[in-house]
Amino acid sequence: MSDFNYSNIETAYEKIKHLLVKTPLISNDYINQLLEAKIYFKLENLQKTGSFKHRGATYKISKLSKEQKLKGLVAYSSGNHAQAVAYAALQNNISAKIIMPNNAPKIKIENTRKYKAEVILYDPQKEIREEIGNEIEKKENRILIKPYDDYDIIAGQGTAGYEITKDLENLSITPDIYLCCCGGGGLVAGTSTYLKYKYPNLTSYAVEPYGFDDTKISLFNKKITANKPGFQSICDAIITPQPGQLTFPINLTTLSGGIVVEDQEVKNSIKILAEHLKIVVEPGGAVAASAALSKKIDLKNKIVVVMISGGNIDLDIFRSL
Amino acid sequence: MSDFNYSNIETAYEKIKHLLVKTPLISNDYINQLLEAKIYFKLENLQKTGSFKHRGATYKISKLSKEQKLKGLVAYSSGNHAQAVAYAALQNNISAKIIMPNNAPKIKIENTRKYKAEVILYDPQKEIREEIGNEIEKKENRILIKPYDDYDIIAGQGTAGYEITKDLENLSITPDIYLCCCGGGGLVAGTSTYLKYKYPNLTSYAVEPYGFDDTKISLFNKKITANKPGFQSICDAIITPQPGQLTFPINLTTLSGGIVVEDQEVKNSIKILAEHLKIVVEPGGAVAASAALSKKIDLKNKIVVVMISGGNIDLDIFRSL
Repeated sequence: MSDFNYSNIETAYEKIKHLLVKTPLISNDYINQLLEAKIYFKLENLQKTGSFKHRGATYKISKLSKEQKLKGLVAYSSGNHAQAVAYAALQNNISAKIIMPNNAPKIKIENTRKYKAEVILYDPQKEIREEIGNEIEKKENRILIKPYDDYDIIAGQGTAGYEITKDLENLSITPDIYLCCCGGGGLVAGTSTYLKYKYPNLTSYAVEPYGFDDTKISLFNKKITANKPGFQSICDAIITPQPGQLTFPINLTTLSGGIVVEDQEVKNSIKILAEHLKIVVEPGGAVAASAALSKKIDLKNKIVVVMISGGNIDLDIFRSL
Repeated sequence: MSDFNYSNIETAYEKIKHLLVKTPLISNDYINQLLEAKIYFKLENLQKTGSFKHRGATYKISKLSKEQKLKGLVAYSSGNHAQAVAYAALQNNISAKIIMPNNAPKIKIENTRKYKAEVILYDPQKEIREEIGNEIEKKENRILIKPYDDYDIIAGQGTAGYEITKDLENLSITPDIYLCCCGGGGLVAGTSTYLKYKYPNLTSYAVEPYGFDDTKISLFNKKITANKPGFQSICDAIITPQPGQLTFPINLTTLSGGIVVEDQEVKNSIKILAEHLKIVVEPGGAVAASAALSKKIDLKNKIVVVMISGGNIDLDIFRSL
């Protein structure tokens, strides 16, 4: 186990706070009544590039040396990390190549290109993105910006947790439960580390789509366990095959377990979030809210923080929900 | 002219700040590039009850005496003030009767009822809401909570401007232009008063839908002038017949003029705001953004604050856009 802890996150926050949107923490009476709880939603869909991934990518890139920046970057991502790396690279005038699945949402591919990155599409049924990324890293001598298995990335994502604690302090509130989406586990590792530091009695859960509950199973087994193949989900942002080598040991200490939601529950939640919170949320960004709204866990009379992690959904899909 | 000024707004803020969502001020790279300007959107659609109206109603009701509260409230509104009064009444355990047009968006009528107010529907083609309200006020001895022509309401709405200045101060930014929707003129009167106090060189505009540009015409004529009859607009929240008796004299001192947007421009803007800002905005709440996005005014290289005033739109209408 590393010595990664809350102080990594405070260091990251000091370095990048002027580059972040300080996203709001919003409560909604209708949803509170519905769940007989007090829910606080952290709106990372309002973050630059439309997801929390901006935090980690920006912090990682801010720590590169001049020489490293000149080499250019390479990253692989289903789309949100792609946009975040492309955006941060553009701000720093760095070349970026991004490897994305050819079935990624159009909005994610288009935005990544809009940020001037070179997008390399691959077939996720036949190719492995890590292999393509490692090959480009070696061949072109580019710096690989991993999506989650990097302590700087985890610390950057954790700054969302730092902001949550500041807002809760202003409200003089101590939360009971934290629900966060989980793909590779970078966001939940970073944020749960900071929240656990501030609130030692907090109970935190990773929320995953049905068929992609590798973190839930791994937490139960107390060792990294991959998903069984053959499943599909609309939650494109968080359908990673297994927990990260760095994120999982952190999550094993901070999380109490995993919660699974089904696609139909996620769709219903996206609708409720649009109608009552007035926000556009992508499927992967809505799973934590879905765990609450589908009552997968007893929240009655609890104070609950729910992560809304991103909003990059194709509008025709959003409309169809 | 009254002595209404920035200090009324600071007093209001101190009294109700713990009851507000401190809504975020968000900038978006795509929109900034599109307009070659730096735009800051104030997201009052994330406010409690889904619009800025929560501010004025909450402040007004917080100032009522115990005796007044016991009498109960009455209000007329196309829907956002209705929800705000109903919500604040419910929080204070006060009876509320709300007069709403029978063609108001379903979401607004349903939410007002959800907040336990008694809703009285009227036919806006045949009846005048002020007359119904005044009759109930007299007959039942209820306290009338006007939607805009009340200095406490104007001061309450102005607290959104107070928050904007705090966020801009944190960013060390001085804005050049302020764009705000305008129906009866309470929000623009309150917020432009505070912004003008902090930024004397700011140029502020009221934005209105085509056919309902009574404030624009009144500012030009330097006297209150009503709209010509016979027009329609999707911007249900801001189709008031003429400027307020109290709001107009304020706006005459703080505003540089009016801007008109058409329904189709508003529809396009709602789509852009969903796709890029990840928010759900109602038509009346999107007119200021629409003035910017439709380039009704030269914003090039300017720092611009744009009010997003509400998000209470029926989801089937939202989907159809």
